[in-house]
Amino acid sequence: MMNPSKVMESISIKLNQKLIPDQIQRLQQQIEFMLEIDKLKHILRRTILTDRSREENSAEHSWHIAIAVFLFSEYAQDQNIDWYRVIKILLVHDLVEIDAGDTYCYDHQSRKDQAQREQKAAERIFKILPLDQSRSFRELWDEFENRKTPESKYANALDRFQPFLQNYATKGQIWRENNITRRQVKDRMQPMFDGAPLLWNLVELLIDDAVQKKYLAG
Amino acid sequence: MMNPSKVMESISIKLNQKLIPDQIQRLQQQIEFMLEIDKLKHILRRTILTDRSREENSAEHSWHIAIAVFLFSEYAQDQNIDWYRVIKILLVHDLVEIDAGDTYCYDHQSRKDQAQREQKAAERIFKILPLDQSRSFRELWDEFENRKTPESKYANALDRFQPFLQNYATKGQIWRENNITRRQVKDRMQPMFDGAPLLWNLVELLIDDAVQKKYLAG
Repeated sequence: MMNPSKVMESISIKLNQKLIPDQIQRLQQQIEFMLEIDKLKHILRRTILTDRSREENSAEHSWHIAIAVFLFSEYAQDQNIDWYRVIKILLVHDLVEIDAGDTYCYDHQSRKDQAQREQKAAERIFKILPLDQSRSFRELWDEFENRKTPESKYANALDRFQPFLQNYATKGQIWRENNITRRQVKDRMQPMFDGAPLLWNLVELLIDDAVQKKYLAG
Repeated sequence: MMNPSKVMESISIKLNQKLIPDQIQRLQQQIEFMLEIDKLKHILRRTILTDRSREENSAEHSWHIAIAVFLFSEYAQDQNIDWYRVIKILLVHDLVEIDAGDTYCYDHQSRKDQAQREQKAAERIFKILPLDQSRSFRELWDEFENRKTPESKYANALDRFQPFLQNYATKGQIWRENNITRRQVKDRMQPMFDGAPLLWNLVELLIDDAVQKKYLAG
């Protein structure tokens, strides 16, 4: 792979002729970021595709929940929110995994230093951007993590809902492989209660159903 | 894989207790759509990841260009547009490939019946949704295809720009394998001139550079 930072270097002189000089470094940083985040496509999650052929990666997951924003918007707890911001939050929320990797939500050992690893990743990755964008991307990530705004509550609800549905649709294959229990899934799904209570009702029923069908330990 | 339409059937009676009855069929259709579109993760494109390890799929591509909407927003020709709509257009624009497959942009043979295949796919896929959403998703797709609104012009520019950058960053591996010429790429990139002229300037320079470096035939 060509080093992202090298891609633009060779042509920056020529660009001087067509762009405002100040814009060149800025554009260089943006392109470097665009190429850097390509790596999210390599981060495998502990969720499988519905045909069970392989694990899902974090770029695919991010796309899927971004579409879910307007597919399920009527179920968001707060209807008076900035939907565009919700999508931006979700498109950005997993970028730190490029360095920090995906942490399985039921793996208590690796969750111990997850926050630390992800903070460090955020430092490096968002710093590739021009300063103003570095800040605004970082803000989107912090907002998701803090789960305080209505936008981030709905975003977190969708981030939990999509892998849940895929687990259910694949008869709990990953749950079974990891001996996951009803209690664990219920705890994990709690943010749905805040962000999308009607979908939480559905999830509660599906959890009961999953236990009955032995997709999930009781 | 469990048939998406079966997922909800078994629990619809229980859901009656917690949801407005009219909502159940609606929610069923939405969940079915959510599971159906998981298939986009299997649609491989003629673009490779920047580390050249494998081809990119259409879900990853859609995520990447959705982020590009706010990463490169300052270069959009029209600054007074509905950015949320641009993202929705891009998240939806490739869904028809679930049935129609990805059509390589330089493959004249398969481009002949591309429109027909994709129309048929749109019919089936968007019909899974409740009627109002079926219409609004279809509208997003039509808007992208027609390239008439400022939102769709910017969306099309990004849809061309991202694979171009990945081709350039991988030293034109796919271009070389397919004997693609400067003329072909320049024609393909034309929508960038309308949607994001400053990025088009960059692309013109990178095309020249790619020819000089033999990533691309002159």
